[in-house]
Amino acid sequence: MTYCVGIKISDGLVFLSDTRTNAGVDNIARFRKMFTWSIRGKRAIAIMASGNLSITQGVITRLNQDIQRSQTDDVECILNADTMFRVAQLVGKKMKGIQQSHSEDLEAHGEASSATLIVGGQRLGGRHRLFQIYSAGNFIEATPDTPYFQIGEHKYGKPILDRVLTINTPLKDAIKAAMVSMDSTLRSNLSVGMPLDIAAVRGDTLAFTHHRRIDVDDSNFLNITNSWSLALRDAFQTLPELKGN
Amino acid sequence: MTYCVGIKISDGLVFLSDTRTNAGVDNIARFRKMFTWSIRGKRAIAIMASGNLSITQGVITRLNQDIQRSQTDDVECILNADTMFRVAQLVGKKMKGIQQSHSEDLEAHGEASSATLIVGGQRLGGRHRLFQIYSAGNFIEATPDTPYFQIGEHKYGKPILDRVLTINTPLKDAIKAAMVSMDSTLRSNLSVGMPLDIAAVRGDTLAFTHHRRIDVDDSNFLNITNSWSLALRDAFQTLPELKGN
Repeated sequence: MTYCVGIKISDGLVFLSDTRTNAGVDNIARFRKMFTWSIRGKRAIAIMASGNLSITQGVITRLNQDIQRSQTDDVECILNADTMFRVAQLVGKKMKGIQQSHSEDLEAHGEASSATLIVGGQRLGGRHRLFQIYSAGNFIEATPDTPYFQIGEHKYGKPILDRVLTINTPLKDAIKAAMVSMDSTLRSNLSVGMPLDIAAVRGDTLAFTHHRRIDVDDSNFLNITNSWSLALRDAFQTLPELKGN
Repeated sequence: MTYCVGIKISDGLVFLSDTRTNAGVDNIARFRKMFTWSIRGKRAIAIMASGNLSITQGVITRLNQDIQRSQTDDVECILNADTMFRVAQLVGKKMKGIQQSHSEDLEAHGEASSATLIVGGQRLGGRHRLFQIYSAGNFIEATPDTPYFQIGEHKYGKPILDRVLTINTPLKDAIKAAMVSMDSTLRSNLSVGMPLDIAAVRGDTLAFTHHRRIDVDDSNFLNITNSWSLALRDAFQTLPELKGN
């Protein structure tokens, strides 16, 4: 499985993904699920992927092929598309095309072809935006009412997002919320695993910040998750009791 | 859906269940999913149910029929069984029998017959024990390594249990943990809904405590969940930040 969370607040965007894939319990591997592209001061785009790995890798490869072709030919790609909405459309089109090529054969072999992507970023002159793209190539956009998307094993990490995230959460707190949401998932589900990939975009900077891999021994991440465990236990101790009878 | 959590710690047992059932989004109803039986000073038993409602109601009805028959005839029932292990066996047998009667027909109509029960309690002379019973009638018992069972929509409420529960958690804190786990689930999943049913057994008292229905306007419950929301947000504020780059 996978867990990826994308957050869109007024301040900017946060992307966080794990790296574990599994086909059964004895076929566990590590694959990057976050892909970023940036032209400093012009645009910053991130995509996170869950679902059938051959499908999502196919989408990323074709997006990169178009970027390469755009350097010599008149090809539309995610780095020259007019708007972030158009970027989402281009990603959706690749998804739809690959599904059309492979889903029937995959189903004939009893495999699921479904895949979901989170696409977000900002281009010069536009706002920062966040989209979730489905297997059919259709997509939805994050709005102030729901400032985050999750793909993969989303349930364990949802309660904390529902409690602390609003459209007005500062970027540094949104990053913390993503960390805590991921930590809750890692602790409760073996199919989600370290290391993590994180990236954030502060609105209008058109560049990534906090863009790095977080390994299992990352002292900063361990400090956050240990502090959270302790703070949670302390918080728990302050709760009133349920009255007996 | 449903969310029920059963906890077995050294101190005793906690049972907490919601009351929402749904067959699609427009067919929502309220059904009790927790059933208790007690003979003060002799035994206290609780069962919680998830899955196909006709199956689980069938199990409870048949268990009650046997209790009634045992008053005049020599019938083994959950109130006279020698051990809690035997109680779990009796419940498992009812489950197996009802599945055999109905599962084929249900499947022919495209319905799932699967159901899961949590059974716990104590009888005079024995320890307090907690079991989870599956559709096939087989069951497992809670041990110090995993002092809780969840059935239904279990993922949202699992992280908090994993963080705060151990076999040595005091009963009052185990009750709070169940409350917080339920609250996280209620907030993130519409298929789980108020009111709640709670019951606890302090080891060797052979009687229920905190045994009541918690309605949507229960001030004690609201106080716990509001305190938890505030404490979580405070805890969140104390976390160190992820370093940028």
